[in-house]
Amino acid sequence: MELGFIGLGGMGEPMARNLLKAGHSLRVYNRTRARAEALASAGATLAESPAAACFSGTVATMLADDAAVEGLVFGDGGILNSLSRGGVHISHSTISVSLSRRIAEAHQQHGQFFIAAPVFGRPEAAQAARLVVIAAGAAEAIERCRPALEAIGRKLVVLGSDPPAANTFKLAGNFLIASMLESLGESFALLRKSGVDPATFLEVMAGTFFQSPIYENYGKIIAGQRYEPAGFKLRLGLKDVRLVLAAAEDASAPMPIASLIRDNLLSGIAQGMGDLDWSAVARVAALKSGLKS
Amino acid sequence: MELGFIGLGGMGEPMARNLLKAGHSLRVYNRTRARAEALASAGATLAESPAAACFSGTVATMLADDAAVEGLVFGDGGILNSLSRGGVHISHSTISVSLSRRIAEAHQQHGQFFIAAPVFGRPEAAQAARLVVIAAGAAEAIERCRPALEAIGRKLVVLGSDPPAANTFKLAGNFLIASMLESLGESFALLRKSGVDPATFLEVMAGTFFQSPIYENYGKIIAGQRYEPAGFKLRLGLKDVRLVLAAAEDASAPMPIASLIRDNLLSGIAQGMGDLDWSAVARVAALKSGLKS
Amino acid sequence: MELGFIGLGGMGEPMARNLLKAGHSLRVYNRTRARAEALASAGATLAESPAAACFSGTVATMLADDAAVEGLVFGDGGILNSLSRGGVHISHSTISVSLSRRIAEAHQQHGQFFIAAPVFGRPEAAQAARLVVIAAGAAEAIERCRPALEAIGRKLVVLGSDPPAANTFKLAGNFLIASMLESLGESFALLRKSGVDPATFLEVMAGTFFQSPIYENYGKIIAGQRYEPAGFKLRLGLKDVRLVLAAAEDASAPMPIASLIRDNLLSGIAQGMGDLDWSAVARVAALKSGLKS
Amino acid sequence: MELGFIGLGGMGEPMARNLLKAGHSLRVYNRTRARAEALASAGATLAESPAAACFSGTVATMLADDAAVEGLVFGDGGILNSLSRGGVHISHSTISVSLSRRIAEAHQQHGQFFIAAPVFGRPEAAQAARLVVIAAGAAEAIERCRPALEAIGRKLVVLGSDPPAANTFKLAGNFLIASMLESLGESFALLRKSGVDPATFLEVMAGTFFQSPIYENYGKIIAGQRYEPAGFKLRLGLKDVRLVLAAAEDASAPMPIASLIRDNLLSGIAQGMGDLDWSAVARVAALKSGLKS
Repeated sequence: MELGFIGLGGMGEPMARNLLKAGHSLRVYNRTRARAEALASAGATLAESPAAACFSGTVATMLADDAAVEGLVFGDGGILNSLSRGGVHISHSTISVSLSRRIAEAHQQHGQFFIAAPVFGRPEAAQAARLVVIAAGAAEAIERCRPALEAIGRKLVVLGSDPPAANTFKLAGNFLIASMLESLGESFALLRKSGVDPATFLEVMAGTFFQSPIYENYGKIIAGQRYEPAGFKLRLGLKDVRLVLAAAEDASAPMPIASLIRDNLLSGIAQGMGDLDWSAVARVAALKSGLKS
Repeated sequence: MELGFIGLGGMGEPMARNLLKAGHSLRVYNRTRARAEALASAGATLAESPAAACFSGTVATMLADDAAVEGLVFGDGGILNSLSRGGVHISHSTISVSLSRRIAEAHQQHGQFFIAAPVFGRPEAAQAARLVVIAAGAAEAIERCRPALEAIGRKLVVLGSDPPAANTFKLAGNFLIASMLESLGESFALLRKSGVDPATFLEVMAGTFFQSPIYENYGKIIAGQRYEPAGFKLRLGLKDVRLVLAAAEDASAPMPIASLIRDNLLSGIAQGMGDLDWSAVARVAALKSGLKS
Repeated sequence: MELGFIGLGGMGEPMARNLLKAGHSLRVYNRTRARAEALASAGATLAESPAAACFSGTVATMLADDAAVEGLVFGDGGILNSLSRGGVHISHSTISVSLSRRIAEAHQQHGQFFIAAPVFGRPEAAQAARLVVIAAGAAEAIERCRPALEAIGRKLVVLGSDPPAANTFKLAGNFLIASMLESLGESFALLRKSGVDPATFLEVMAGTFFQSPIYENYGKIIAGQRYEPAGFKLRLGLKDVRLVLAAAEDASAPMPIASLIRDNLLSGIAQGMGDLDWSAVARVAALKSGLKS
Repeated sequence: MELGFIGLGGMGEPMARNLLKAGHSLRVYNRTRARAEALASAGATLAESPAAACFSGTVATMLADDAAVEGLVFGDGGILNSLSRGGVHISHSTISVSLSRRIAEAHQQHGQFFIAAPVFGRPEAAQAARLVVIAAGAAEAIERCRPALEAIGRKLVVLGSDPPAANTFKLAGNFLIASMLESLGESFALLRKSGVDPATFLEVMAGTFFQSPIYENYGKIIAGQRYEPAGFKLRLGLKDVRLVLAAAEDASAPMPIASLIRDNLLSGIAQGMGDLDWSAVARVAALKSGLKS
C-alpha cells in the first residue's frame, strides 16, 4: 500500500525499511533530512514536509515524545490539516493516554481515522521486523492498514476501536518491564551484600523458573553491570514511567511500584546515570545499599 | 541412602514419598501421627520422636516457620542433641537467614554438618519431583547427601559452603515472584479502570514477550480472580516477605518493593483475605483503585 | 496604591477585600461577574476584562490552577499583552515551578516585572488578613508593591529575585502539611486497631510535644472524622502534590513521601472522597487497615 | 516511696536521680556496676543483683531493647521470680507491643502487677524531669506508684489498664517524629536543589506556621547538617521504626511511611551513618538527590 512515514529515529528508520522490504510505497519525512535521504536511496520517496508525507491519505508516525507528536499533529502544516477526509493516521509513538485521546477526537472531528499502534521491542527487534504491535482504532481503518501494521512486527494485536486503549496497554507493558528491572536490582543488591553471586541466582531463576528471555537478557546486563551502551536510556525510561503514572492518575488507579521506580530513576538522573541503560535503576538500588557500583 | 524425615505437611509429604520412590530408606516423624502412618504404609519406618528420626545420622526437615524449626533443633530431644557426631541435618524449610546462621553454628559446635536446602515449587511440583533445590553447606556433606537432594527435584543447585546463602537465595527468589504478583496487580487495576481487558494484556505480555509460564499461570489466576483454593496462602506470603525484609535488614540492603508488598499483604489480611492465594495481593490493588473485587 | 485584582474565588475575594480595607484602590475582574460586582459595592472599580484590570500598571492574580493562569497570561487579551512596559504582575496562585519560570521569562521579554507571591493559609486566614506571603521577584518591583503584599497577611517573606523560588517554597510547605496528614492518618489507624483512643494520643503529642496548632487542628478533624465541609478539597490536594512531584522531577530530587501521598489521594478519589477535606487521606489509611471509616 | 531501679544508662541514670531528689528511696542495679555506684553516692542503696532490686516489691526498669528486657524479666534470677506476690514492675523501656503483652501476662500469672510506662524525651529532658510519661496498667498499681511516675516528668498520661496500649502509644509517637524528620529531609533536598535556602524555609514553616519547637529544633539540626554528636543514634531510630512496623503488623494496619523510613534508615546504615543522629535520614534524602552531603 501507499503511505507516508514521519520520524526516522532509532525505531522509525528500521520500521520504515521493513515497510519498503514488504513492498509498500513510502513517502518519508524526517526533521533531520539526511536520515530521510538514506531511506530514499533504499526506495522511498522524499517528502519535503509533513504535509507532503500525508499525500496518499495514510501516514504513520514514530516520534520521541508527547511534545513532538502534539506539534506534528496540531501545528501549522500539521497532520490534522494535511490529511484528506477519510485519511488514516497511524501513531506508533509511546505517548500519553490523554494526548492519544485528544488526537483521536481531533481526527474524528476532521472526518479522519486515528489508529494508535504503539510497539514493543528494542531497535534490534525493529530491524528484524520482530516488534509486537498493539493497535486500536476504527475496524475499517485497521483492516485497510493491516498490511502495513503486519509488515513491521511478528505479531499484531487488535484491541478494539478506542485508540487510547492501545496506549494504556503499551504503558502497562513497559511498567511490567520496569518493575522487573527494579525487583532484579533490589534482589541483586541483597544477594551481593550477602555474599551470593547474582549471576548464579539469575541463571536459576530465569533459566528454570521464570523461563523468560527478557528476565535473562536484562538480568545479564544487571549482573554484569553493562549499562553502556544504552539500549534504552534511563532518562527515556523516566519519561515512560511518568506516562504510566499520568495514565494511572487519569484512571484513578494508584500504582505504588511505578511511583517508587520513578523516584529511583530520578535519583539515577541526579547521580549522573541519565544516559545509561534504564536497567541501571539496579545501580541505584546498589548505591542505596552502600555498594560502590 | 538411609535418612530421617521430619515434617510431613503439604510439601514434606510428597518430598518424602519421592525419596521412598527413589529407593531411599526413610524414618519419618510428624507431630500429627496420622500423616506419618500414611507414609509408613508406603514403605517408611515410623519414628516415635524427632530423636528417633535422627537415628541413621542423616535427617531432613521440612517445617512451616522459624518457630517450628527453632523448637525442633534446639528444644529438648531436639535434633542438635539427637544427631550423632558427624551427622547431617538437611533443612528444606523456608526460614530466616539469621536462624539458618544460628543453626549452622550450633551444628558446627556439635561436630555435625548442616545443609540449608530450601526448595522452589508448589505442592504439585513437590509431588512430581520437579522442585528446584538450592543447597549450601560443607561440600563433603552435600556429596554424601546428593542422592537424597536429587531425588526430590528436577534441579539441584549447589551454592557453596555457607548455609545461610541458600536461604538468602530462596528468599530473594520468592521476592521476585511476589514482585511479579504486585506488578501484575497494579497493571491489571490500571487496565480494568481504563476499559482494557487484562486477559488480552496477559496473553500478549506473558505469551509473546515475557514468554514465562510463571507469568502466565499467576496472571491467569489474577485475571480470572480465582484466589481460591489457595496454592499458597496470603498470610504465608506475608511471612515470606517478612523474612525477605529481615534478610534485607541484616544485609543493610533496602528493598522498597518488598516493603510495599508487605504493606499490601497486611492490608489484604486486614480486609479478610488472609486465606486466599497470595496472588490476591492483586485484589488489594484493585480495591485501592475503587474496584469492588 | 492602585492595582488590578483578577480572580475572586474563596481566597481571592477576601484578599481583595483586605486590600480595599487597607486603603488601596482596586480594579477587579472575575470570570463570574457577580463576584466582582459584590466587590464593587465594597468600593472596588469593576473591570470589564482582564486587560482593563491591568490599567494601573500593577495587577495581582489569584486563580485555581496552571491552566487558568496560563490562559490568563498568554491568551488573547491576556496580561502579557495588556500590561504596560515596566508594569508588575503579582501572582498569588499555587502553580507549578515550570509555569512560574515561563511566565517570569515572558514578562521579562516584555519589559515587565513578575512577582511570584503564593500564600499560605485557608480562607479564614485570608479573611482575617493572616496569610503568610512568600514573594520572589525583582527587588525594585517588590518594594513598589510592598504595601499591597503586606495588606493581605500577617507576614511577608521576601525570598530573592527569582520568582520560581517562591513557588518551590510554597509547594515544599504544602508537602510538609500533606506529610503531617498522612502520618497522622497512619498512626491513628494503628492506634484505633490497637484499641487506643487517637484523641488522647493527639492531645498529648500536639499539646505537649509538637505544640503546634496545625497538628492540633488537623488532628482533631481526623480524630473526629469531620471531613465535611471541606476546608481544602482532597482533589485539590492531589493537584498540589502533583505540582510538588513535578518540582521534584525538575530538580531531580526524589520525594518518596510525596509519591505515596499521591497514590493515597488517588485511592481516595477512586473511592469517592474527592470532595472531602484532604485530611481524608487519613480515611484511606483507615480503610486499608480494614476499618470501615 | 521505696522502689528498685534497674538500668542506669543515658536515660535511666537521670530518671533515677530525679526519683532520689523527689525523696524516694532507691535500690539501684546496673550491669556495669560503676554507674550504680555513682548513684549510691547520691543516696541510693546498691543492689547486688536484679533480684535484690526487687526487694521492696516495686521495681522500675529502663533498658535498651527487647532482648535486654526479656532477659531481665524471664531469665534466671529475673524480675518475674524475684518480685513478691502483689509487687509492681514499672517498665519505662521502649519495647515491642508483643513483648509488653507477654510480660503483662506473665506478671499476672505470678500475681504481680505490670505497668508499661514508656517515656518521651531526650536525655536532657530526663535530666530536667521534663519527660512525658505514658502509663498503662491496673489502676490500683498506678495509683500506688503515682509519686514515682510523676517524679520523673512534667506530665503523666494514664491510658487505661492494658499495658501494651502504652507501648503502642509511644511507638506511634516516635513514628510521628520520624515522619517529620523524613519529610523535612525530602523538602530540604528539593529546596537545596532548587536554590532555595532551607533555613529560611524552616524559619517560616516552623516559626509562623507549624509553630512547633520540635520542628524548629530538628529542622535546625538538618539545615545545619549537625548530625554529631547524636542525640539519638540512627541505628536506634531504626530499632524504633522496626518496633513500629512490628506493631503495625500485629494490628494489621499498613504504615507505608514507616516502611519507607525504615528503608532510608537502612540505607543510612549501609552508607556509614549508623552512629549519626537519626535526623541524618535527611542526609540519605540529600544523597539520593545527588547532593554530596
